[in-house]
Amino acid sequence: MKRIVEQIVAELSKSSADDGLGKGIPVGVSNRHIHLSAEDCEKLFGTGHTLTWKNDLKQTGEFAAAETVTLVGPKGVIQSVRVLGPLRERTQIEISRTDGFGLGIAPPLRDSGDIARSAGVVVAGPCGAITLKEGVICAGRHIHMQPDDAQRFGVHDRDHVTVEVPGPRGCIFKNVLIRVHPEFCLEFHIDTDEANAVGLKNGDQVKLMQCEDV
Amino acid sequence: MKRIVEQIVAELSKSSADDGLGKGIPVGVSNRHIHLSAEDCEKLFGTGHTLTWKNDLKQTGEFAAAETVTLVGPKGVIQSVRVLGPLRERTQIEISRTDGFGLGIAPPLRDSGDIARSAGVVVAGPCGAITLKEGVICAGRHIHMQPDDAQRFGVHDRDHVTVEVPGPRGCIFKNVLIRVHPEFCLEFHIDTDEANAVGLKNGDQVKLMQCEDV
Repeated sequence: MKRIVEQIVAELSKSSADDGLGKGIPVGVSNRHIHLSAEDCEKLFGTGHTLTWKNDLKQTGEFAAAETVTLVGPKGVIQSVRVLGPLRERTQIEISRTDGFGLGIAPPLRDSGDIARSAGVVVAGPCGAITLKEGVICAGRHIHMQPDDAQRFGVHDRDHVTVEVPGPRGCIFKNVLIRVHPEFCLEFHIDTDEANAVGLKNGDQVKLMQCEDV
Repeated sequence: MKRIVEQIVAELSKSSADDGLGKGIPVGVSNRHIHLSAEDCEKLFGTGHTLTWKNDLKQTGEFAAAETVTLVGPKGVIQSVRVLGPLRERTQIEISRTDGFGLGIAPPLRDSGDIARSAGVVVAGPCGAITLKEGVICAGRHIHMQPDDAQRFGVHDRDHVTVEVPGPRGCIFKNVLIRVHPEFCLEFHIDTDEANAVGLKNGDQVKLMQCEDV
């Protein structure tokens, strides 16, 4: 019953944000997290260990695992950093700039997957630690969408758009990357610094304003 | 010699940011801090204690004190929170939304001085602790300027303007409060969430775009 009410409320808020330009997009706030390779997963959690599903994320196939790790930098430590599944080819850590200052590292602003010459850090788990020479990034804000959404918004994969955030801390984000894939779910991904700076939380709605590349 | 070079570089970057509309404004990032009343200062640091000057801030008469306090919330603790001087009529704490999540409190977005029904927290010093029922805010972004600046920018005290931030995490901040006073020094004040979200640091330049109220 509660779930049904939540769905109705979500649908109603979606259609109200869709008024006017019809370009409302729900917000997904990414807290600090780590994607692990199978090899690093075993080093941290033990030989033969596989990730324990905890809950699904909005993007198809992605999930939060029960496992967490500790990040150890030259200036500080962050505990309880969530592992996201499934396992990937390469270990990648996404943190905010604020997290970076706390750890004493300076992760570059990058799109997910682009980790060459990014920041390093020590990652500790219950069964061991790994020393990453690179892999820590500050993820650039982006919008996931399906081809249907892209057509409706008049944008293409890898376009950059501007996004309007309403409210007392309202702003217009420039340089927002569009990512189109049939399996994606419409969502504006920002990190905790961006969310907290402009007063956004999960499920809030923002508006796609214009394409910068066309 | 080093200081002269720095001044020249600062002047050059200022004049380059002043190109076009001539509306470059230097950024001042406010880290979490506390302003103390004389009474609270004595409770935290001992009877008869006065603040120890550490370094001047850019705004005339304001200084960072050598003293720091610990904030204790229901969910967490933040150590080494800087006391700013001089003493004020009422104790006020300015933290970011990220700090608020860490402490487990939700400070409202307010202009400095407006602390009625704001968040509470426990403040601990070397000689005792105080329990604030209110006084913790998330400071709204604002620009300090002198009357000459206001005339040049075509704005008035208490106006709201938009501010453009350049760079890969570029954005346009709306609802930026203008504060005009003969003793003010031109500076765009933002908190650490805002600075880290858009890649700004102390001394960077932003551009005043337009007045929203006129």
